[in-house]
Amino acid sequence: MTAQPRPGLSEASILAAVLPQLPTGEQVEVGPGDDAAVVRLPSDRLVVTTDALVEGHDFLPGATLPRWIGRKAAVQNLADVAAMGARPLALVVALSAPAGTDPSVFEELSAGLAERAAADGAVIVGGDLGRADRLTLAVTAMGAMAPGDAPVLRSGARPGDVLTIGTVRLGRSAAGLALVLGGKVHVDAAGSISLEGITTPDAADLVRHHDAPEVDLSLGWSAGRTAHAMMDLSDGLVRDGGRLAAASRVRIDLDRAALAPDVETLAALAEELGEDPWAWVLHGAEEHAMLAAFAPDEVPTGFRPIGRLHEAGDGPVVTLDGTPIPGEGFDHFA
Amino acid sequence: MTAQPRPGLSEASILAAVLPQLPTGEQVEVGPGDDAAVVRLPSDRLVVTTDALVEGHDFLPGATLPRWIGRKAAVQNLADVAAMGARPLALVVALSAPAGTDPSVFEELSAGLAERAAADGAVIVGGDLGRADRLTLAVTAMGAMAPGDAPVLRSGARPGDVLTIGTVRLGRSAAGLALVLGGKVHVDAAGSISLEGITTPDAADLVRHHDAPEVDLSLGWSAGRTAHAMMDLSDGLVRDGGRLAAASRVRIDLDRAALAPDVETLAALAEELGEDPWAWVLHGAEEHAMLAAFAPDEVPTGFRPIGRLHEAGDGPVVTLDGTPIPGEGFDHFA
Repeated sequence: MTAQPRPGLSEASILAAVLPQLPTGEQVEVGPGDDAAVVRLPSDRLVVTTDALVEGHDFLPGATLPRWIGRKAAVQNLADVAAMGARPLALVVALSAPAGTDPSVFEELSAGLAERAAADGAVIVGGDLGRADRLTLAVTAMGAMAPGDAPVLRSGARPGDVLTIGTVRLGRSAAGLALVLGGKVHVDAAGSISLEGITTPDAADLVRHHDAPEVDLSLGWSAGRTAHAMMDLSDGLVRDGGRLAAASRVRIDLDRAALAPDVETLAALAEELGEDPWAWVLHGAEEHAMLAAFAPDEVPTGFRPIGRLHEAGDGPVVTLDGTPIPGEGFDHFA
Repeated sequence: MTAQPRPGLSEASILAAVLPQLPTGEQVEVGPGDDAAVVRLPSDRLVVTTDALVEGHDFLPGATLPRWIGRKAAVQNLADVAAMGARPLALVVALSAPAGTDPSVFEELSAGLAERAAADGAVIVGGDLGRADRLTLAVTAMGAMAPGDAPVLRSGARPGDVLTIGTVRLGRSAAGLALVLGGKVHVDAAGSISLEGITTPDAADLVRHHDAPEVDLSLGWSAGRTAHAMMDLSDGLVRDGGRLAAASRVRIDLDRAALAPDVETLAALAEELGEDPWAWVLHGAEEHAMLAAFAPDEVPTGFRPIGRLHEAGDGPVVTLDGTPIPGEGFDHFA
């Protein structure tokens, strides 16, 4: 399909604005501008994952900033590479946007992608610009297994392992989302978050965390490499835990006392919104922290025990102090 | 962002339908189902590119089939890897679709992607399912430079080189697009193309070629490796030729006599539609054939001479028998 030529921005002028935002790296043999990029990997074992963000479905324009959208698109992909126990090296991004999109949107998205990638040692090596009715970012992240290393799969957990999470607090992204979906959030161009009628202190931090989760992904390719199984927490603790448990043919019993501090932190806001903070902690999506199973005496610094793995049985795959958990995590099509 | 649970298809059930469509390959160490895939490359030099197709902008549902959309999404990415002189090995795809999309759409898209990838020796190793208002496929294709090989860039052409194209006929995709945009095309579920009021024989073949271009990409990683410069023809001969010329700091003079047979083939349909067949041949997008510059005595079988490269001058970068060419190729944002 082609469009008739119309006055306005050209792909070339957009790229001219965007490309200077993109730092390069010593791993880049051929960067943006040719048909494809060429990237030198530390081994011949490529690790690759892809994930998209779509306006109206994955973010609401008035409740975030293009720069934060870029960071979120980066982190959700970088987390998948990290969760294999591999270090991310490169991103490519297919960016689709409505005609007339302000050039600063492309610049800010790119800057957000690049700065989050840089935090994990990766660079943007290529991309594609196209048209869509809604802003869409499809990001692919790549890394490599170090020579001799095995990927850390979801399927290696064993009965007796400790289930851990690589973040100090769970449920924050879900709490931020509740504020966004409640229509209470406005973010101005400078990144200042105003929350209509909300009195709970620090609630804006939850929106900020939802819009662009800050998470230490290096846990994946450093301490996380000793995990028996690992994945990133993208669709909620119960749902993702269930996936890890199913792949490893075990069941998970979550520890209520271990998760109580997470719930307590969110209790005031949940009460103000009339929501259940346990649902945020147990089912909240888009944390992107490393969810990992370790032998009991091998839990490394940075990973916090939140449950225990047992022989699979006939009951629910994931329980809380031995009791079934109501509700579900996130499913795009449910 | 999360959606409230609603009855309907789950991601798991869609994946259960799609994953069996995906053949694996000996290069796949970890396939779909974990956080990321692990692919063994023939070297540590990754070649990677990404490109998206969006419903309503890049295809019209009634004028193509999900299987053909899959093939097109594959070929446009595989062509970019081939144009570096590298063999494609793996694809990942981020698929976004409206709620309520029929499961067969996912199956057919995946089958189309997989079968075109297989034709070039590549397999789908991972993906992402998400929601959007319009069907969107963002594909990333990966390959590797063979050890010791240099990528074939756009920038290596020299004055005196012959410009060639790796297809027997140009302009067919543009002619098919003219039929689609004219509202004259209907494709039924079995892939039968009906053309309202069109009498030119074989016009349906042009729609078929537009919907899923069939092109020999192996020219890129076989004979094309001796090219001084190479790229795939995605945005039209004049525009893409201009990019190759600019990168190589040369100018291109296209040979009217060499392109006349392409024009002649399309003349009857162009007359019926009241369009200019030269515009289709010179500016038509989405052919994805290899556009390559060779030394005059080194043009390999499969590449057809269509012009000559000269020292850059003050005039237009691309001319036809020495005269300026009106019009432009495809720009998503122009």
